[in-house]
Amino acid sequence: MIKIGILGYGNLGRGVESAVTLSDDMEIAGVFTRREPETVETQTDVPVFKVDDLYDMKDEIDVLILCGGSANDLPTQTPEFAKYFNVIDSFDTHAKIPEHFENVNNACLEGEKIGIISVGWDPGLFSVNRLYAQAILPKGNDYTFWGKGVSQGHSDAVRRIDGVYDARQYTVPVESALESVRAGENPELTTRQKHTRECFVVAEEGADLAKIEEEIVTMPNYFDEYDTTVNFISQEELDAEHSGIPHGGIVLRSGSTGLNDENKHIIEYKLTLDSNPQFTSSVLIAYARAAYRLYQDGVVGCKTVFDIAPGLLHPETPEYQRKNLL
Amino acid sequence: MIKIGILGYGNLGRGVESAVTLSDDMEIAGVFTRREPETVETQTDVPVFKVDDLYDMKDEIDVLILCGGSANDLPTQTPEFAKYFNVIDSFDTHAKIPEHFENVNNACLEGEKIGIISVGWDPGLFSVNRLYAQAILPKGNDYTFWGKGVSQGHSDAVRRIDGVYDARQYTVPVESALESVRAGENPELTTRQKHTRECFVVAEEGADLAKIEEEIVTMPNYFDEYDTTVNFISQEELDAEHSGIPHGGIVLRSGSTGLNDENKHIIEYKLTLDSNPQFTSSVLIAYARAAYRLYQDGVVGCKTVFDIAPGLLHPETPEYQRKNLL
Repeated sequence: MIKIGILGYGNLGRGVESAVTLSDDMEIAGVFTRREPETVETQTDVPVFKVDDLYDMKDEIDVLILCGGSANDLPTQTPEFAKYFNVIDSFDTHAKIPEHFENVNNACLEGEKIGIISVGWDPGLFSVNRLYAQAILPKGNDYTFWGKGVSQGHSDAVRRIDGVYDARQYTVPVESALESVRAGENPELTTRQKHTRECFVVAEEGADLAKIEEEIVTMPNYFDEYDTTVNFISQEELDAEHSGIPHGGIVLRSGSTGLNDENKHIIEYKLTLDSNPQFTSSVLIAYARAAYRLYQDGVVGCKTVFDIAPGLLHPETPEYQRKNLL
Repeated sequence: MIKIGILGYGNLGRGVESAVTLSDDMEIAGVFTRREPETVETQTDVPVFKVDDLYDMKDEIDVLILCGGSANDLPTQTPEFAKYFNVIDSFDTHAKIPEHFENVNNACLEGEKIGIISVGWDPGLFSVNRLYAQAILPKGNDYTFWGKGVSQGHSDAVRRIDGVYDARQYTVPVESALESVRAGENPELTTRQKHTRECFVVAEEGADLAKIEEEIVTMPNYFDEYDTTVNFISQEELDAEHSGIPHGGIVLRSGSTGLNDENKHIIEYKLTLDSNPQFTSSVLIAYARAAYRLYQDGVVGCKTVFDIAPGLLHPETPEYQRKNLL
């Protein structure tokens, strides 16, 4: 059995806990939290420890999955714990991946451990699909659409506006843009042409709704480059209709082959997810399996999804995979 | 530069030749054929040799791509040449893959070469996607739809019928079945419910059309389990409208996560290809790049797409990939 440690017990940590129940070759050694362990109740009676207890449990954990945030937790946590554990994280600040990779790689080499960073679906499965598609169709264009799904960052930005009590923001791909790509038209698409943004807002009593709407749609970086719709609803409706965390998206490559580019090909990869954190967690534990296997083979250092052969992710043997999946 | 040899110069071999023109890190050392070399004219002035000349050109070829058929060529050719060359093939007789793997592996170990078998899109990219999706969503159902596309085997079967002069057969996924899968309904689908078959037939003058149609739709293994439509057309129309070799298909996994299976997820991978052989060739050369790199690192033995880390397929460095694709 592969013994998994979970560091951080938010949506992602809870997702890892539930995902492990679907994998016969894994079990959870413990949840590690900065909160008082007594105050944390797990879903499956997994024991809860303080973060500092990790250092005494090195022999009881095969792979530590870091379930914190990319802004404040992972940049320090992953390098710190990669000195003592095989680690997996979902670091998703694209621009800082090279720097994070270096830091984690140095820690892994120091501790002779393996780390796999930026695991999830974007970065993660979407990245893998961008890479496969580019490698196979060197001549072509890439497109990534996100949604329909909840953007936590945009929801938070709306909630910070004066007079807003609660809010949920959906990113929605523009269907006509998607159809143009699928038709092989290779459109050049502006930010506005690719996605729209849909906000459901609970305003405080007496708030100036027109002013809130204006503040949302003109907000730099978050909304000003998009066509945004704002719907004011009650807290009850928000809770009833918008409490899930769905997400997903589509990666496409539209390419051509032939000496005169005479043949067009479209590669499309699409995810439709009821729960973004639960799906991400499911990806994390598949890569935890790969980390465990590689470590058994003596591999150390920092890796990404690009370095991991697909067969390492699947619980069955290579013989089974060739016979049943190839 | 990676020096590629092409064994066999049909649609696939010609596809490899044209695909290599799109890859800056590769060049073709030669085409090898059982025909008289003087009778073979290549598309890009690549030199043509007899198959037996291969044995004298071991130092001039980094990877030999075998472009013959799975029924008669590859079962003997791949093990034979894996003793002397790094090889790639597109062996696609699913039931015989384990046996072929053993034979190629023994040859590779004897010659200290690397071989990657069953490369293409099914087996190949579809297999990889089935594996990723199963590894990530252990609880769920797999679906593979093929088409719309030309089935060479079914077209040949129709052409063998008395009174048929020429024919083209398309495999077509049933849209309602596909929509049910995409909606997460997890349908159980019979062969008939998944695909229909569409035949375009040129009959000989005076042939009994009703008899031909009856023979097609009742043909065991090929058509009897499907709803098949037969259209009689002229040779001119067949040549004008049905001379391409399009294909493609869709791999889906519909799975659930959560302690009570409360969240549903759909992973969909879709290929829409103008030219089946040109796309397959493009996959072959990406895996030839991986074979070359692994061989440089001292790896020998038989591999499949499951053993190849995605990053090895892409021409750029790991640093570039992490910075730009992750």
